[in-house]
Amino acid sequence: MTPKISRFLSENRPATPCLVVDVDHVAERYAALKDALPLAQIYYAVKANPAAPILHRLVDLGSCFDAASIEEIRMCLSAGATPQQISFGNTVKKVSAIREAFEAGVNLFVFDSEEELDKIARNAPGARVYCRLVVENDGADWPLSRKFGTTVKHAYDLMLRAGALGLDPYGLSFHVGSQQTGIEAYEAAIAKVAMLFTDLSAAGLDLRMVNLGGGFPIRYRDDVPEIERFGLAVGQAMTQHFGNNLPQMLVEPGRFLVGSAGVVSTEVVLVSRRGGAPEAPRWVYLDIGRFGGLAETEGEAIRYPVRTAHDGTESGPTVLAGPSCDGVDILYEKRKVDLPLALRDGDRVELLSTGAYVSTYCSTGFNGFAPLQEHYI
Amino acid sequence: MTPKISRFLSENRPATPCLVVDVDHVAERYAALKDALPLAQIYYAVKANPAAPILHRLVDLGSCFDAASIEEIRMCLSAGATPQQISFGNTVKKVSAIREAFEAGVNLFVFDSEEELDKIARNAPGARVYCRLVVENDGADWPLSRKFGTTVKHAYDLMLRAGALGLDPYGLSFHVGSQQTGIEAYEAAIAKVAMLFTDLSAAGLDLRMVNLGGGFPIRYRDDVPEIERFGLAVGQAMTQHFGNNLPQMLVEPGRFLVGSAGVVSTEVVLVSRRGGAPEAPRWVYLDIGRFGGLAETEGEAIRYPVRTAHDGTESGPTVLAGPSCDGVDILYEKRKVDLPLALRDGDRVELLSTGAYVSTYCSTGFNGFAPLQEHYI
Repeated sequence: MTPKISRFLSENRPATPCLVVDVDHVAERYAALKDALPLAQIYYAVKANPAAPILHRLVDLGSCFDAASIEEIRMCLSAGATPQQISFGNTVKKVSAIREAFEAGVNLFVFDSEEELDKIARNAPGARVYCRLVVENDGADWPLSRKFGTTVKHAYDLMLRAGALGLDPYGLSFHVGSQQTGIEAYEAAIAKVAMLFTDLSAAGLDLRMVNLGGGFPIRYRDDVPEIERFGLAVGQAMTQHFGNNLPQMLVEPGRFLVGSAGVVSTEVVLVSRRGGAPEAPRWVYLDIGRFGGLAETEGEAIRYPVRTAHDGTESGPTVLAGPSCDGVDILYEKRKVDLPLALRDGDRVELLSTGAYVSTYCSTGFNGFAPLQEHYI
Repeated sequence: MTPKISRFLSENRPATPCLVVDVDHVAERYAALKDALPLAQIYYAVKANPAAPILHRLVDLGSCFDAASIEEIRMCLSAGATPQQISFGNTVKKVSAIREAFEAGVNLFVFDSEEELDKIARNAPGARVYCRLVVENDGADWPLSRKFGTTVKHAYDLMLRAGALGLDPYGLSFHVGSQQTGIEAYEAAIAKVAMLFTDLSAAGLDLRMVNLGGGFPIRYRDDVPEIERFGLAVGQAMTQHFGNNLPQMLVEPGRFLVGSAGVVSTEVVLVSRRGGAPEAPRWVYLDIGRFGGLAETEGEAIRYPVRTAHDGTESGPTVLAGPSCDGVDILYEKRKVDLPLALRDGDRVELLSTGAYVSTYCSTGFNGFAPLQEHYI
C-alpha cells in the first residue's frame, strides 16, 4: 500500500467496499518498465483498468494503448490519445467495431484466424495487421493460450494472405499468459516468433514489428523476478534472434502498471466457525467477493495480500469468502489465509495489489450489492 | 422461447446482447408452483432477477420474497411488498443491514452460526429466526453446501440459544442446491430437518416453520422431473415426518420462476477454425460471455439451449466462447455444442432459459463492454 493510499483511507474512511488507486504509482511503474525495456513501446492494456484518471496520466506520459473493444478505443480517444497510439488488440472484433475504429484513424489490428483477417480486409482496407501466435503459457497464473493465437504454419499462410488482401502485414505477436513469472517463457516465445519473422521476410513480406504481449508479473504474496530481469532477458533474446536489425517492439502491460497501485478496502461481515466446533475451520466473510470484482480468485489463481489492524497478533488459517448467497463466492479455501484470531465483524480489511482486473469484473448488482466504489488519487 | 418473446425479437430487433423476459411467463410459473405445492408459501429468491417488473408482478400475485441484502429488501418494498412478506435469507448480513431491515418491519432472519445469531439478537431484538442446516447437494448443478448451513447438533444448540437471547426460534431451513434434479434430495433433507424439529419441540421450543429452500430445476438441454413430482414428494415426505401437525412451509424458488421466462439475444462476432486446419475445432465467439452475465457457465455447469436461424441444416461440434480478451471467457468447450455449419459472424443467436442469474452477474464493463440491456415485456 502506498503512503498516499494509506493516508487517504485513514483520513477519509470511505464506505466499503471500495477501490483506491494511486495514480502516481502507475506513473512510477510506467517509468520502471520504460527503464527495463527502453527499446519497447508500451501499449497499456486498457482492460486492466480503464478509469479515466489512469488513461489521462498515461497519455501525458506518452503511452500507447492496447484496446479490447470499440468502447475502450473511445475511452482512449476521450482521454486524449491519438488513433495512432491505439492498437485494436482483441482477436475477436465486431465488424461495426472494426469500421468505427478504422474511420477514427486506428491503424493497427490483431487477428489469429482467416475469418477475422478477412473481416479486417473488408472493413479496414490497407490497415496494418499482426498475427497472434499461440505460445506456451506454463508459469502463468492466468493462462490465455487456449482461446487465442494460432500455429506458426497457419500464421505464415495468414500473413501472406494479409498481403494478398491489400493489408499491411506489419508484425507478429504472442502472449505468454497473465502474471507470468517465468522469464524463459518470453525467451522461448521470442525464438519461435523470430523464426517465423525470418521466414516471412524471406518470402518477401516487410514485417517491422514484434508484439511481446503482456504478462509481466507483480508481487502478490510471493516474490516475483524484478522487471529488470525480464527486460534483460527479452533484450538478449531479441538481439540473439534478430541481430542488429531489431524490429519495433511492443509490450502490452496491464497488471504490471496498475496492479500494485490499487487497494480494495473492505469490511468483515461475519467471522464464524462453520459447524460451531472450536476445531472447525474459521470463515471470514468480507463485503466483497468474486462477483464484486475479485473474479481472478477463481480457482484461487490470484492471491491478494490481506492487511488487517490486528496484524502481528495471534493468527490462524482462515477461509476467506464473499458476502453473496452464491456457493462459489469463496475467495480462498483450499489454500487458507493466515489471519488474526482477533478479527471481528465490522473490522476493516485491506486487499493489496488490487488495482488491475477488479473494477470492471465487478457485477452490476449481484445479490443487490452495488458496484464497487472507485477512488483515484 | 415464448411466442411473446419471439414476436418482440422479430419486430424490434433489439441491439445485442440483450435479455428479454416475458413477465407473463413468470406469472404462469408462479401459478404452476402454487398448484404443485399448495401448502407452501412462495418466497421468490430476488437474487435470481431483481427487475422491478418481475417484483411488481409477483407482489400482485401475493408472493413473498427471499432477499439476500438490504438493497434487495429495499427493491421489494419499492415494488409494493410489505415487510411481513420479506425474509432476510442471507446467512451473512451486515449489522447495518439487519438494523435497517428490522426497523423497516422485516421480521424473519436466517442464520447458521453463533456469531450471526448474536448479531441478530443485538440488532433485531425479538425477531423470528430460523437456522439453516447443511444437507447433501448431490444432484445439483450449482451446489451451495460448502459455504452455507450447519450441522444438526450445532443447529440444536443455536436454536436453544436463540430462545435464550430473546429471539423467536421460528423454524429451520435447508437448501438442496440450485438446479437440483434429484427429488430424493428433498426427501432426505426433510427427514433430517424433521428429526431436529421434533427434538427442539421436545426441548420446549415453539417451532412453526420449515423453509425448504429453492433449487427446483428447469429444463435446459436435458429433461428434468416435472414440478408436480417434486410437489408430491415434498408433500408426502412432510406428511410422513410431521403427520397432521404440519408446520408452515416456505419455498424459495428463483430459477424456477424466472429462468425459462428469459432469452438472451446475441450476435456471432467470429466463427473460426483455431489453427486453420479443416479438422481443427470450430469456435463460435458471441458478443456475450461469462463476464457479460453467463457466469453460471463456469465449469460448464449450466448449459443453455442455443437457437439459430440455421437450425436443422448440417451441423457440427462447436466451442462457444465470449468476446473478451480473457482466456477463461469460454462457455462450452469440454462438452461442445452442436451448431449449424452455416453460422457466420453477424448472425443472431438466441440463448434460451436465461431469465435467471444472468442480468445481475453481468460485469459493469469488462473489456469495455456495456452491461446487458434488459427488456421486460
